[in-house]
Amino acid sequence: MIKYPNGSCEKPKSTINKKKRGITTAANRGMDLENDINISNQYYLENDLAVITKRPTPINVVRVDYTHGAKITDAYFEKQSTTDYNGVYKGRYIDFEAKNTKSKSSFPLSNISHHQVDHLKRVIRHGGIAFFIIEFEAYNEIYLLDAKHVIDFINELKRKSIPYNEIKEHGYLIKQGFNPRLYYLDIIDKVYF
Amino acid sequence: MIKYPNGSCEKPKSTINKKKRGITTAANRGMDLENDINISNQYYLENDLAVITKRPTPINVVRVDYTHGAKITDAYFEKQSTTDYNGVYKGRYIDFEAKNTKSKSSFPLSNISHHQVDHLKRVIRHGGIAFFIIEFEAYNEIYLLDAKHVIDFINELKRKSIPYNEIKEHGYLIKQGFNPRLYYLDIIDKVYF
Repeated sequence: MIKYPNGSCEKPKSTINKKKRGITTAANRGMDLENDINISNQYYLENDLAVITKRPTPINVVRVDYTHGAKITDAYFEKQSTTDYNGVYKGRYIDFEAKNTKSKSSFPLSNISHHQVDHLKRVIRHGGIAFFIIEFEAYNEIYLLDAKHVIDFINELKRKSIPYNEIKEHGYLIKQGFNPRLYYLDIIDKVYF
Repeated sequence: MIKYPNGSCEKPKSTINKKKRGITTAANRGMDLENDINISNQYYLENDLAVITKRPTPINVVRVDYTHGAKITDAYFEKQSTTDYNGVYKGRYIDFEAKNTKSKSSFPLSNISHHQVDHLKRVIRHGGIAFFIIEFEAYNEIYLLDAKHVIDFINELKRKSIPYNEIKEHGYLIKQGFNPRLYYLDIIDKVYF
């Protein structure tokens, strides 16, 4: 079994070329959380509401062939030591990680690295807004959960997962639609402003 | 001549593996602005002063060989549509681009893309702190210049470069040392707080 640098056995989605999904139907909703966030961010950018971007997946480049332009011929995915998304909204620094799960009962914490936890703790300490966007595919539900809850579950409670009911209680269900695909700025307004 | 995606003919430095320079001497000062900023950011991170990180260079991955782990065998550097650095300091969003020049008389604006200018304008509109760190190699001087000045020179004055004297007048000379290598947070304190 191949282990990718994100710790999971799925291929990193973001770096592989693919057609951008333009239309969201009931059938493909929840299929690609990352893409949903990207098109939401694009909407927020175009409507001048926020500047939130995805950090590129870090790649360790070993060899580049300069005979025909600059073609990378040997390289490896590296682990993201921070989070996937950051930016600015109403003057505040925003930083978050997006994760989805097929589980119906809980959100497993195994694919959150201690580097990411350390990063989010620092962001909070320096006055930034830090959270997770968590999708339960089985319910087609996407929650915004403040990073403090996740950090507590990992560091204080030493748990391996967060029960679905806890996320329902402490998180905020993000409205889904067409434009924006995810109304997560509405939740940020409600929770942090 | 090979054109790289940053528009210059220099190989993108950040993605090629290299030894991190640990020691700074008079001889190699100013040789690698990006590395100087990276080690300064590392110092600021370790001393819990700010969380400012470099965005990885975006790479368009065309082919991955999964027979031995996940080896990227065909990929290309993409143009950074935002800036190289962002993060949080004292609750404020920080966003900047670093550039160096060998010129003694002016800082050429040709290697700043209109995507980067648009991005920095948005950052300012949303209440973030946006600037350039500009190194004049000939003088071993590194300046922090608010992004508004650069945007004005490009959009309003339609200039191709910013004269050195203008940068001396409107920018702030960043103190150089060992730890941090660049005292640029001191300038942020002075200019934006």
